[in-house]
Amino acid sequence: MESSRRDIGPEMHKLVGRLFPTCRSITGNGFRHSLALLQEHIPISVQEVPTGTEVFDWTIPKEWNINDAYVKNSSGEKVIDFSQSNLHVLNYSVPIRKTMSLEELKPHLFSLPEQPNVIPYRTSYYKENWGFCLSHNTLSSLKDEIYEVVIDSSLAPGSLTYGEYYLEGEIEDDVLISTHCCHPSLCNDNLSGMAVSTFLAKELTGMKRRYSYRFLFIPGAIGSITWLARNEDNVHRIKHGLVVACVGDPGQMTYKKSRQGNAEIDVAVQHVLRHSGEQYRVKEFSPYGYDERQYCSPGFNLAVGSLTRTPHGEFPEYHTSNDNLDFIKPHALEHSLSTYRQVISLLEHNRTYISQNQKCEPQLGKRGLYASLGGRTSSPLAELSMLWVLNLSDGDHSLLDIAERAGIPFQHIHDASQLLFDHELLQERRPLSPRSGE
Amino acid sequence: MESSRRDIGPEMHKLVGRLFPTCRSITGNGFRHSLALLQEHIPISVQEVPTGTEVFDWTIPKEWNINDAYVKNSSGEKVIDFSQSNLHVLNYSVPIRKTMSLEELKPHLFSLPEQPNVIPYRTSYYKENWGFCLSHNTLSSLKDEIYEVVIDSSLAPGSLTYGEYYLEGEIEDDVLISTHCCHPSLCNDNLSGMAVSTFLAKELTGMKRRYSYRFLFIPGAIGSITWLARNEDNVHRIKHGLVVACVGDPGQMTYKKSRQGNAEIDVAVQHVLRHSGEQYRVKEFSPYGYDERQYCSPGFNLAVGSLTRTPHGEFPEYHTSNDNLDFIKPHALEHSLSTYRQVISLLEHNRTYISQNQKCEPQLGKRGLYASLGGRTSSPLAELSMLWVLNLSDGDHSLLDIAERAGIPFQHIHDASQLLFDHELLQERRPLSPRSGE
Amino acid sequence: MESSRRDIGPEMHKLVGRLFPTCRSITGNGFRHSLALLQEHIPISVQEVPTGTEVFDWTIPKEWNINDAYVKNSSGEKVIDFSQSNLHVLNYSVPIRKTMSLEELKPHLFSLPEQPNVIPYRTSYYKENWGFCLSHNTLSSLKDEIYEVVIDSSLAPGSLTYGEYYLEGEIEDDVLISTHCCHPSLCNDNLSGMAVSTFLAKELTGMKRRYSYRFLFIPGAIGSITWLARNEDNVHRIKHGLVVACVGDPGQMTYKKSRQGNAEIDVAVQHVLRHSGEQYRVKEFSPYGYDERQYCSPGFNLAVGSLTRTPHGEFPEYHTSNDNLDFIKPHALEHSLSTYRQVISLLEHNRTYISQNQKCEPQLGKRGLYASLGGRTSSPLAELSMLWVLNLSDGDHSLLDIAERAGIPFQHIHDASQLLFDHELLQERRPLSPRSGE
Repeated sequence: MESSRRDIGPEMHKLVGRLFPTCRSITGNGFRHSLALLQEHIPISVQEVPTGTEVFDWTIPKEWNINDAYVKNSSGEKVIDFSQSNLHVLNYSVPIRKTMSLEELKPHLFSLPEQPNVIPYRTSYYKENWGFCLSHNTLSSLKDEIYEVVIDSSLAPGSLTYGEYYLEGEIEDDVLISTHCCHPSLCNDNLSGMAVSTFLAKELTGMKRRYSYRFLFIPGAIGSITWLARNEDNVHRIKHGLVVACVGDPGQMTYKKSRQGNAEIDVAVQHVLRHSGEQYRVKEFSPYGYDERQYCSPGFNLAVGSLTRTPHGEFPEYHTSNDNLDFIKPHALEHSLSTYRQVISLLEHNRTYISQNQKCEPQLGKRGLYASLGGRTSSPLAELSMLWVLNLSDGDHSLLDIAERAGIPFQHIHDASQLLFDHELLQERRPLSPRSGE
Repeated sequence: MESSRRDIGPEMHKLVGRLFPTCRSITGNGFRHSLALLQEHIPISVQEVPTGTEVFDWTIPKEWNINDAYVKNSSGEKVIDFSQSNLHVLNYSVPIRKTMSLEELKPHLFSLPEQPNVIPYRTSYYKENWGFCLSHNTLSSLKDEIYEVVIDSSLAPGSLTYGEYYLEGEIEDDVLISTHCCHPSLCNDNLSGMAVSTFLAKELTGMKRRYSYRFLFIPGAIGSITWLARNEDNVHRIKHGLVVACVGDPGQMTYKKSRQGNAEIDVAVQHVLRHSGEQYRVKEFSPYGYDERQYCSPGFNLAVGSLTRTPHGEFPEYHTSNDNLDFIKPHALEHSLSTYRQVISLLEHNRTYISQNQKCEPQLGKRGLYASLGGRTSSPLAELSMLWVLNLSDGDHSLLDIAERAGIPFQHIHDASQLLFDHELLQERRPLSPRSGE
Repeated sequence: MESSRRDIGPEMHKLVGRLFPTCRSITGNGFRHSLALLQEHIPISVQEVPTGTEVFDWTIPKEWNINDAYVKNSSGEKVIDFSQSNLHVLNYSVPIRKTMSLEELKPHLFSLPEQPNVIPYRTSYYKENWGFCLSHNTLSSLKDEIYEVVIDSSLAPGSLTYGEYYLEGEIEDDVLISTHCCHPSLCNDNLSGMAVSTFLAKELTGMKRRYSYRFLFIPGAIGSITWLARNEDNVHRIKHGLVVACVGDPGQMTYKKSRQGNAEIDVAVQHVLRHSGEQYRVKEFSPYGYDERQYCSPGFNLAVGSLTRTPHGEFPEYHTSNDNLDFIKPHALEHSLSTYRQVISLLEHNRTYISQNQKCEPQLGKRGLYASLGGRTSSPLAELSMLWVLNLSDGDHSLLDIAERAGIPFQHIHDASQLLFDHELLQERRPLSPRSGE
C-alpha cells in the first residue's frame, strides 16, 4: 500500500469541511446529500429502504426532513436559529408553528449547565417530540415573554438511505469497514469517520486485493440492523471488521476489541498499535458504543472491533457544538488513516505456511539465505525472522501468530516468509475462500 | 431475602453464650445438648450412628462423656479444675483416679510457653490417653509434691451424633452448609459457625427457595466422613457448598476456594466480596482445614469452599481459652450472616437465559425500556446492564458470568434480566433438576 | 543420586584443561581426540558418517584437519601463529601457502575492534574460504609489507564423527542429554558442557535408573541433524531432553524452555530452580541457539530445553580467546552438575499415583502417619505433603504437578508419596513404556 501522501490530512479535513454544514439524521435528504459528496471520491451505491420495512425487531421509521427552525421573541428577534447551527433543533423534531409562553416552551429546551457556552446535540428518533437545543447561557437569558416557535420539518413515509461500496478481491472473504453518517454538524463523531473511510476506500480501489472489502456508510444502529437484516445470508463472509468513528481528535488511538476478544482482527490491530512506538489504549468489548453492538450481537458475533482515537463520550466536546472543525486535526486524520492502512496491510499479508522441512532446519547457507561466516555473536533480525517462520510454520500458526510469539514486527516476519517462499521452503496452507469458477 | 435486623448480631452472640459452657467433643452428651439448644431455633433432625460402624476408611469411635476432672495438691486445693474451664481436660481423656508425683504427672500436662496465660486446647480422639491443659504460668508454679489426679470420664460403646436440617426447594439441587460443633468452650472456632448457620437456616425456612438446602451440624472430620458414607448415593445433588467456621472475630472475610477452583460457588463468593467495598482475602484450596477436606476429596470433588473471617490457626486466640465470648463480636457475626445471605441470594437468582433476539439488539425504546431522548453522553447503569444481558444471553453465560464480564454488581444484572424477562425478551435456558412429578 | 563430592568441580576443570589445547571442528581428528579423552571416563560409542551422506536437507561435508598455520612478516617473524592459539585460524580454512601484500591479506583477517586484546572465533564450514583471526591490536600493528601465509590444512572426503553413550533403564523412555563438542579452545562454550555431561553420565552409570539415558557428544547443528536423520524411527522414545552448554561461567543458571513450553522437563527444571534459593532466569523458546533448534523443529517438537549458566552471546568472553580456563570456575561446574543431578532425580522419581481412598481421607492416625495429639495450631510439612498427595492423586496429577500446586518442594511430596505407598494407600497409575519381554 502506498504510504501517506503529505497532503492527505488536509484533503480529508477539507472533505469534513464540506460535509459539516449539512443537517444529517438517520433518514432524509441531509443523509443523501452527504453520500453525494462522498461519491465525488468513490462510487458508492445508494440504497433506499421504505418506511415501514421490518428489520429484525425494528421498523424503518418515517423519513425526516427539515427546512428551517427558529424561536422568535416578542421583539421579533430569532433567539434560537437553525440557520446558525443545525444542532439547535432536536433531531427528528415534528413540525410546529405556534406562539407560547416561556413556561410552555421550557420543557422543549435542552442545554448543558456544566458547559454553559455550548449547544448540546439531542435526538428523538422513535418517540415523536419537538424541541430546541441551546447554550445554557442563552437559555438563562430568555425573558418571560411570548415566543414564536417554528420548526419547518416533515416526518412522513419515505425511506432510509445508506451507502455501500464493495471492492471485490481475489477471495470472497470480506473485510467490513462500517461508518455512521447520521449526525448533523459534529466533526469527530461522524464526519472524521466518513472522511477516513472514504479515503481508505479510495486507496484500496487502486490496489491488488486478496480480501474483498465492504464499506458501509449508514445511520447508526438502525442502519447496521437494516444492512444485517437485508444481507443475513452473506454475513458469514465477513471475516474481519472495524467500526470507524472519532478518528480526527488529537488523542491517542484506542482499540475496542470484538466480542470474541481474540479474533485475528483483535490480534492484528493490537500488533500494529504495540509496534507503533506510540501510546495507545485497548478496551474490552462492551455492548455499548457504535454499530459493533449489532455486528457483535450473539446471533452474528462477528469479528468486528472498533478503532478510534478518543472514544465516544470520553472527550468533553462529544455531542456538543464544540465537536467542530477546530477540534479535529489534519495530522490526526492522516495518522488514523495510516493506522487503518497498516492493519489492512497486515490482514492482506497474513498467511499460514507449511515449512517444507519439518524435520530439522533447512540449510539456509547453501541457498545464500544465511551469513556465510559463522561464529558471530548476534543474529540479524532477518535471519532470526527466517528461523521463527521455519520453526512455527507447522500449519497451525499464521505469520501474525509467529510475529506475536517471536515479539518481532509483522513486516520482518512477512519479509522472511517471502524469501523462504521464493526458495520453495514454504507452501501456503490453503487459500481461504476462492471465488467459484476460479 | 430480608435484610439484617438490627438485633440479629446480639441474638447470635447470646446463642453463643448459651452454648459456651458445654463441654463438646466429637461424640457424647455435650454434642447432643448443643444440638438441643439449636433446636430451639430450627427443627434439626438428630442422627445417631453406633460405635463401631465403618465409614469409608474410618470407624465410629467409642462415645466419650465427662462429669468432672481436677488435680489436687497435697493441701487439697484444686490446682487444675475442669469446672473452671472444660479446656483443662485433654479432650477424650480416658478416666483416671490416682495420686502421683509431679514428675509422673508432667508428661500429661500441656501448656503454651509462648502464651503463658492461656489454656491450650488439645485432643486425643483416636489414641487412648489422658491429660490436662493449663496455662504455662500455672504449670510453672506447681510444686514438687504428690497430686491427686481425677478424670471422671467414660469412653464406652455408644454413638456418634450429628444434626441435619433439610429445606426442600423447587429443585432437587442442593446447597450444603456444613458446620463443625465438636469443640468445647471455643467461640470463634466452632460456636460462631453454629450460630450463623442456625440463623441462616432460620431465615431460609420462611422463604421461597429455588434450591434445596442441607445444613449439617457435625463433629469435625469424622462427622463429614460419616455423613458422606451414609449419603453416598445423593452426594451428586450437592451443587454448591460452604463450610462455616470462624465467623465471629473482628477480622476481614476470607474465602478459601473449592478444589475445583472455578466453580459457581467460587465465582459467586468472590463476586460478593469484590463488590462489598471491604477488604477481603481469597485463598487457594489446600487439603488442610475443616470439612472441605472431605467434601473435596478426589472421589467427591464437590464445589464446596469455606467462607470465614480470620482462618483457623491465623489468630493467636485459636485453640486457646482466649477464643472466648469477648473475642467474637455481635457486629462481626451479623456481617458474616449478611455475607452468607448475599451469596445465597446470588445463587438463588443466578439463571441462564436465552435472548429472544439473537440477531441485533431488540428495540428497547418501543417497550419503554430505554431513555427516549437519545444523544446523551452517558448510559445509566440500568440500560448498560440490559445491553450486557441481551448481548451475552446466548445460552452459554449465566447472569453471574455476565456480571463478572461486565464488571457490574450482580444485583443490577439480575434486575435488568427481570425487566427483559417481563417483556418476553428472554427465556430461561432450562431449569436445573426439577423434582420428579413436577 | 549421590550428592556432589567435594573434589568433583576441580576434576571437571582438570578435564577441561586436558581438552583445551586440541583444535576441534565439526569434523576431523580434533573431534576424535576429544572423544578419546572423554572415553577415559565413560565408554562412549564413536560413530563415523561418511562425507556426502545426505541428512535431511543437509550433506555431510568434507573432513577438515589441520597441522599448522602462520603468517610470517618479511623479517621471518611469525606475527600470527596457530601453535600459540588454535583460534588464530578461521575454522575450516582451506590450505594456502603463498606470499602476499598486507592489502591482499587483509580481507582474510578478522578482529574485534570493540575488544582489541582478544582473538575472535570464526568459522566457514559450508563455504570454502581461508583466514586468520587475531587481536585488533595485532592487526593494527601489521606493517605494509610482504607476508608469507601458510595454512597447512586438508579438506577432503572423510567422515563426520560423533559420540553416543546409552544407558539402558527399566523403561524404554529416553532422556536425551546433548552436548556440542566442535569448538576449538573455548571453555564455557563447549568444554564445560562436555565435562558436565561426562561426569553426569559417569554418575548415572552406577545407578539404578528408571529412564534410559542417551548422551550425545556431537558437532553443533550438523551433528544433531545427522543423529536425528539416522535415528528417526526411535526419536519418539525421547520423553525429556536437555542441551548442555555454557555451564562453567560464574553467572546464574538460565533455563530456555522447549518449544512446547510446558512439557514435564520445563516444569521440572523450573521447579528445581525455583526451590534452589538462588537467582535464576527462564527464557521462552526461540529457534536460535544450540541443538534445541533441531530437536524442537516442528516435525520433531521434542520436549528438549537448554539448561545453561549465562547463555551464548550474553557474556563478553563468548567466542573469543577470553573464554579460557580462567573464565570457568570449578565451583560453577560443580553447581551446574548438581543442578542437572537434581533435575534428573526429579524426573526419575516423578510418578503418578492413584489414591486407594478417593472418597474422604484415609485415617492416617491409625497407621501411625499422623501426629496422634490433635488440636495443635500448625501442621508439619510432612503431614501437609501427605494430605496433598492423597487429595490430588486422582490419576491426573503427577507428583510434580502436586508439588507445583502445593508450592512444596518435590522432595517432600515424593517422601510423602513413598510413605503412603508403603502403607498401601497409593498405587502407581501405569508404568510408562516397559521393555518388551518384561
